[in-house]
Amino acid sequence: MIRPAELIERKRDGHELPADELAELVLSYARGEVPDYQLAAFLMAVYFQGLSSSETFALTDAMVRSGETIDLGGAIGRRVVDKHSTGGVGDKTTLAVGPIVAACGVPFGKMSGRGLGHTGGTLDKLEAIPGFSVDLTTDAFLEQVRDVGIAIVGQTADLVPADKKLYGLRDVTATVDNVSLIAASIMSKKIASGADAIVLDVKVGDGAFMKTLPDAEVLAETMLALGRRAGRDVVCVLTDMDQPLGSAVGNALEVHEAAATVRGEGPPDLTELVLDSCAHLLALSDLGIDAAEGRRRAEAAVADGSATAAYERWVRAQGGEPDEGALPKAPFVREVFAPRAGYVRGLAAHAIGVAALHLGAGRLTKDGAIDPSVGIVCHKKRGDAVEEGEPLAEVHARDEASATPVAAGVLEAYVFGDDPPQARPIVLDTIG
Amino acid sequence: MIRPAELIERKRDGHELPADELAELVLSYARGEVPDYQLAAFLMAVYFQGLSSSETFALTDAMVRSGETIDLGGAIGRRVVDKHSTGGVGDKTTLAVGPIVAACGVPFGKMSGRGLGHTGGTLDKLEAIPGFSVDLTTDAFLEQVRDVGIAIVGQTADLVPADKKLYGLRDVTATVDNVSLIAASIMSKKIASGADAIVLDVKVGDGAFMKTLPDAEVLAETMLALGRRAGRDVVCVLTDMDQPLGSAVGNALEVHEAAATVRGEGPPDLTELVLDSCAHLLALSDLGIDAAEGRRRAEAAVADGSATAAYERWVRAQGGEPDEGALPKAPFVREVFAPRAGYVRGLAAHAIGVAALHLGAGRLTKDGAIDPSVGIVCHKKRGDAVEEGEPLAEVHARDEASATPVAAGVLEAYVFGDDPPQARPIVLDTIG
Repeated sequence: MIRPAELIERKRDGHELPADELAELVLSYARGEVPDYQLAAFLMAVYFQGLSSSETFALTDAMVRSGETIDLGGAIGRRVVDKHSTGGVGDKTTLAVGPIVAACGVPFGKMSGRGLGHTGGTLDKLEAIPGFSVDLTTDAFLEQVRDVGIAIVGQTADLVPADKKLYGLRDVTATVDNVSLIAASIMSKKIASGADAIVLDVKVGDGAFMKTLPDAEVLAETMLALGRRAGRDVVCVLTDMDQPLGSAVGNALEVHEAAATVRGEGPPDLTELVLDSCAHLLALSDLGIDAAEGRRRAEAAVADGSATAAYERWVRAQGGEPDEGALPKAPFVREVFAPRAGYVRGLAAHAIGVAALHLGAGRLTKDGAIDPSVGIVCHKKRGDAVEEGEPLAEVHARDEASATPVAAGVLEAYVFGDDPPQARPIVLDTIG
Repeated sequence: MIRPAELIERKRDGHELPADELAELVLSYARGEVPDYQLAAFLMAVYFQGLSSSETFALTDAMVRSGETIDLGGAIGRRVVDKHSTGGVGDKTTLAVGPIVAACGVPFGKMSGRGLGHTGGTLDKLEAIPGFSVDLTTDAFLEQVRDVGIAIVGQTADLVPADKKLYGLRDVTATVDNVSLIAASIMSKKIASGADAIVLDVKVGDGAFMKTLPDAEVLAETMLALGRRAGRDVVCVLTDMDQPLGSAVGNALEVHEAAATVRGEGPPDLTELVLDSCAHLLALSDLGIDAAEGRRRAEAAVADGSATAAYERWVRAQGGEPDEGALPKAPFVREVFAPRAGYVRGLAAHAIGVAALHLGAGRLTKDGAIDPSVGIVCHKKRGDAVEEGEPLAEVHARDEASATPVAAGVLEAYVFGDDPPQARPIVLDTIG
C-alpha cells in the first residue's frame, strides 16, 4: 500500500516516483480512496518539480486503466484514425477533416470532450446542427464507424474517469499549466478511445494554451512519445493561433464554414490545415500511401463532391439535418467597419474568443448554456488590405444591446498598419 | 469575495498577496467555505514560493481571529508570562519554569497543545501525575492564574480553530516544513491565549525540527517579529537538541526530573535552561527587574523551597497529587552498560526519542494511547567519562520483551571516543 503523504513529499523534494506507486496513487484517487486534498498538494508539487517521461507515461497509462478502453481497430477490422486539437478560437477542423478522410475510405472515429472555452468544443459545434446527437453508446459508435465510416461522439463517463476527476481538481487548484499533466490528460483519452493513428494539432499563439512555438514543441514531443509508447502512430502539427482559424467563430457559423470547406469553398488557412491533416491521417491509415498521395486524394474527394456526400451521410447518421439552411441564425447582425485604410497586421485570437464568449457562444461555467446562433465572422484577416469604411467583420448577436459592446471589442482586436505583415503559414511545424 | 483558485495561482507564480485577501482565504477555510483541496494546493505553493513577512503576519492574525481570544493581562490585572518550546526529546522545561516564576510572584498562564511526537507533549507529561486535569474552562483557567499564580491547561477547541484545521491538512499533504507556516501556527496560539510576554525556546539539532542553527535562527526571528507586531514582548532562546535535554525521557520520569529541578537537584543542562528561561520571563514581567536580577530571584526561589511550594500548590490546584511516590512506575527496568571505556562523544536525541516511542511513551497516531510509566533515563551524557561495564542508561518498560530491543537502540544512540568532545552550552544563542 502506498502512503500518499510520502509520495507527495518525494515529489515535492524532486524525486522520481516508481511507475507502480504513481499508478496506485492515481487509481486509488479515481476510486475515491485518496482524498482530493492529497491529490491537490501532489499536483502542485508536480507543477513545481515536473514529471519525468517515465512518470508521465505511468500517469497516462494509469489514467487509461482507470476506466473502459475501446479497441476500435479490432472492432472494425480496419485501422481507424482520429485527430485532436489542443483548442483554439474558430477551430472547426475536425468537422471538415472527418468526412474528407471517410470519403477517402478510411474509418474516422472520435470521442470528444466538452470544452470549457471561449467558444464551444467540437460537441457544441455539432449540436448546433438541428437534431444532431453526440450521445451514442459505445456499441452504436462502433457500428456507425463501421457502417458509415465516421462517427464523432461525446466521451462516455466510463472513459478515463481519472482524467475527469483530475481535470476538475486541476481547474480549481491552479495546476492546469503543466506540460506532463496536459499531455497525459489528452493522450489518455486518445489511447482509451482506441484509434490506431492520431494527428495531434497543437495550437500556438495568442489564442492558444501554448503561447510560443518552443512551449508547443515540448507539448507535442511529450504527446508523441506517450502515443508511441502506447503503440499508436502519431503525427503532430503545430499550427498558428495568433489569429482565429478561418473566418467564423461561433457554433452554427463554424458549421457553415466547415461544410463550405468540405465542398472546397472554405477560407484559405482553414482549407490548408484541413487538407494537411487529412494527408497525414491518410498516410497513417491502412491505405499504404504517403502524405503527398494522401493530400491528392483529400483534394480529389473535396473536388468531386464525395467529401460533401460523406458529410451529409455522417450528419444524417447521427440524427442531424445537413441542409445548412436549417442551422440556427442570430436575429441581429452588426457590421464592423475599418477605421482606416492600410493592412491588417494582426487580429488577436484571444480577444475575438472573449468577444464570442460575451455573445453567448461559449460557456463560462461547466453548466453554462450556449447560444448556437451567435458569433463573429471575420472577413478580413492578417495580411488583408482594407479601405477606410470597408466591412471588417460581422457580429451575430441575440440583440443590438449585446452586439454593440462586442462590436467595439472586435474592432479593438484588429491591428492596422501601412505595410503588410510578414507572411506566416498556418502549419508552423510538423513532428513525427 | 476572493476567488481561491486565483489566489493559489498568484502565490504559485510568486506574487505577494494582500493581507485582506489572504485573511479571507484562511477565515473562509476555517468556516468550511473553501474546501481542503484548494488550501492543500495553496499550502504547497507556499512551500515552494514562501510567504513574505507581511503575508506571514496576515496569516497569523487571521488564524488568531478565527476563534476565541483571551486577554490574560486584562483578566488578571497583571502582566502574565508564558513560554513555548518547539519541541525536543526530554523537554520538561515548562514543568519547572512555571512554578519557579510563580514563586517569584509573576503570573504564569499557558495553554498547551497535544503533541504528536516521540514523547508526549507538556499535557501528556502533566497527565502522568495522578489526578491532574488539563481540561479547564477558560474561566477556571483565568481564576487559577489569578489565585494560584500558575495554570497550564489544554487549549480549548475555540482557540485558533484555523490552526487545528490547517495543521491537520499540512500533516497529510507534506506541507509542514515551511518556516512561515510553522511560525504562524505557534504564534497564533501564543497570541490568542493572551500572555503579554513570551519566552520561545527554539530547539536546534538532531532531535529537533530545526537541524541547524541558521535554520533555527530564521524561525526564531520570524516568530519574534510576529509576536512584536501583535504587541507582545518576546525573547527567543536557541537551545541544543543534539542530545536529550536532562536525563529522563518518558512522561512520569520527566515529571520526577522537573520536580527535582524545581528543588535544585536537576541535571546541569536542564537546570541551566530552566534558570535562563526564568530570568528572561521575570525580566519581561511587571517586576521591573533585568534578566540578571531575574536569574538571582529564580535561583533563590529554588534554594529556599518556595519554588517547590509553588509546584505543589499548582499541582493540587489542578487536582493532582504532587507526592512523587504517587507517579506511575514501569514494572521492568533494564540497565544499559558501557561497552568500552572512554568519553561519551554524542547521544543521538532522535534515536532516544524513537526508542522511547517504541516503549509506548509517545503516540504514533492522533488517537494513540500513551503509557505514562515507561521511558529512558540517560545517566551518561555528552562529555561524561565512562568505564567499561559502567551503567549508561536505564530502560523503563512494560516488560522484558519490549525492553530488550529498546536497550539495544539506546546503546546505538551513544557514540564513544578516547577524548572528551568540545563543550557545547545548552543555550546556543539568545535573540530579542
